[in-house]
Amino acid sequence: MMRVIGVMGGGERSTPEVCRLAYRTGYLIAREGWVLLNGGRPVGVMEAAARGAKEGGGLTVGILPGRNPEEASAYIDIPIPTGMGDARNCINVLASQVVIALPGGAGTLSEIALALKSGKKVVLLNFPLGDEFKPYYENGQLIPVKTPEEAVAVVRSLLRKR
Amino acid sequence: MMRVIGVMGGGERSTPEVCRLAYRTGYLIAREGWVLLNGGRPVGVMEAAARGAKEGGGLTVGILPGRNPEEASAYIDIPIPTGMGDARNCINVLASQVVIALPGGAGTLSEIALALKSGKKVVLLNFPLGDEFKPYYENGQLIPVKTPEEAVAVVRSLLRKR
Amino acid sequence: MMRVIGVMGGGERSTPEVCRLAYRTGYLIAREGWVLLNGGRPVGVMEAAARGAKEGGGLTVGILPGRNPEEASAYIDIPIPTGMGDARNCINVLASQVVIALPGGAGTLSEIALALKSGKKVVLLNFPLGDEFKPYYENGQLIPVKTPEEAVAVVRSLLRKR
Amino acid sequence: MMRVIGVMGGGERSTPEVCRLAYRTGYLIAREGWVLLNGGRPVGVMEAAARGAKEGGGLTVGILPGRNPEEASAYIDIPIPTGMGDARNCINVLASQVVIALPGGAGTLSEIALALKSGKKVVLLNFPLGDEFKPYYENGQLIPVKTPEEAVAVVRSLLRKR
Repeated sequence: MMRVIGVMGGGERSTPEVCRLAYRTGYLIAREGWVLLNGGRPVGVMEAAARGAKEGGGLTVGILPGRNPEEASAYIDIPIPTGMGDARNCINVLASQVVIALPGGAGTLSEIALALKSGKKVVLLNFPLGDEFKPYYENGQLIPVKTPEEAVAVVRSLLRKR
Repeated sequence: MMRVIGVMGGGERSTPEVCRLAYRTGYLIAREGWVLLNGGRPVGVMEAAARGAKEGGGLTVGILPGRNPEEASAYIDIPIPTGMGDARNCINVLASQVVIALPGGAGTLSEIALALKSGKKVVLLNFPLGDEFKPYYENGQLIPVKTPEEAVAVVRSLLRKR
Repeated sequence: MMRVIGVMGGGERSTPEVCRLAYRTGYLIAREGWVLLNGGRPVGVMEAAARGAKEGGGLTVGILPGRNPEEASAYIDIPIPTGMGDARNCINVLASQVVIALPGGAGTLSEIALALKSGKKVVLLNFPLGDEFKPYYENGQLIPVKTPEEAVAVVRSLLRKR
Repeated sequence: MMRVIGVMGGGERSTPEVCRLAYRTGYLIAREGWVLLNGGRPVGVMEAAARGAKEGGGLTVGILPGRNPEEASAYIDIPIPTGMGDARNCINVLASQVVIALPGGAGTLSEIALALKSGKKVVLLNFPLGDEFKPYYENGQLIPVKTPEEAVAVVRSLLRKR
């Protein structure tokens, strides 16, 4: 069974700096030999992380909200259309052994919350969350990091413990 | 078509004070003639709001994570078992014309985020959120209030505008 | 907890005769005091059964494939938009204590199959199925009947056994 | 983007002959360079088709009903846990560019019906269906074949037309 790591984050309104981090994270995931999984659309963090993973020689899976595989980013190898809209966010997190979250809006926040609800660890890459998430910082489910290198090192260590 | 108002909030770990607010909110929703919708389980905010709605003479719908209608609170009139786990949180918010959110953990935060993602308004009853939600305070999707009476007044005004 | 009975069947291409049976079935369900649940759209068996239930004085719930409650039939009291497309068919059957199926196409056949998979009984109203469904006739999950009166009598007897 | 072909069929009660056909179908799919997608569990047609695909040198994706990737067959490379129970059957068919169906019970019948509902072609390998499916034989969505070689030839021809 392959290791599947999810990278979540903003869509259309992502800044170039966040996309650069997403690209680097995807690249490093591929270099580790892990599969990159994301929401599959050709925008923002999704597009950048998938491009990074492909340019790092990896395999990419995109869990799409719609019914049409052609909606996927060109950097997605295996599109999984679900036809379920935002309910696919639940699958994004369940199908990821660890989730790395970059800055994003309500969609990304729903994925972080759903991952926490299902007991997953979430590596927060430059994405500080408010006091309402405090219990999850305290119990170690939320792990803040500053760089893609650090994010991948945390994932490596989490996978080793399993 | 009936008006359906969702009340979201914590489960097992809800405080008595939060449950009291949930009860009162459910009661007032019923007095307005609206249907109360929630996650259906017999704990915390779900149980309290459903009990309030029933004691206010209202109708209650519970969207359950499991497959068994018997998992519902005794105060739920119409259980909707989904067998979809947390993916039912998406249905909770889509099926609610307005969402009222009380304090809760990751499940509640996922419902707030999913409601915002789908363009809904969320009335936050004594549940302040961090800076990562700032854009949604600014665009008017997140509406903070202090009392059940105020929450219901906001919902009434939102329904009138539709 | 109310009794919830699902009525499934064809959409746009339903014949007037099938719609007449659906109307009568919805009417009788309401007269029993049960809630009618269906797919909620304003066509075919869905529309007819909901109209029958309303004219019989009952309550109707529609589990919609889309995100917009306005897509519901005018005879649906409580629309439950899911945004999940055909995945809502799973909810249709899980939320029904017994399913009554009238003639229909692939959507109806998926609901019958999903109901059988989840262990439910399905009352087939003038809708004979082929040999691939034989094990489910033999184990008593599929119960063929000829009239709405007979369908409702079977449901009554099944509910009594629970 | 890779070609993803779904193979559906029975679980625990599949006969050795059906499993042999499933193995051969998976093997041939891999030899074509297509990704095999199925329901991921380690039983019946799922297990046999995934084993065939792996022994043919291919890549396998399993869309699981539960939340735990460890529930997957050992022949699944990329498990996608959904936590959605039978609602994952909708994803099985939407994520498959063409569906090949072998004999099975209610789960397989639901996948065939859901595939037809979503407009997909279904290649029926030794699995004749009754008159209720007649319109889909007539419009060319259901394509009966007798051997894995024939099934794969039909898929090849369908992919070429897209």
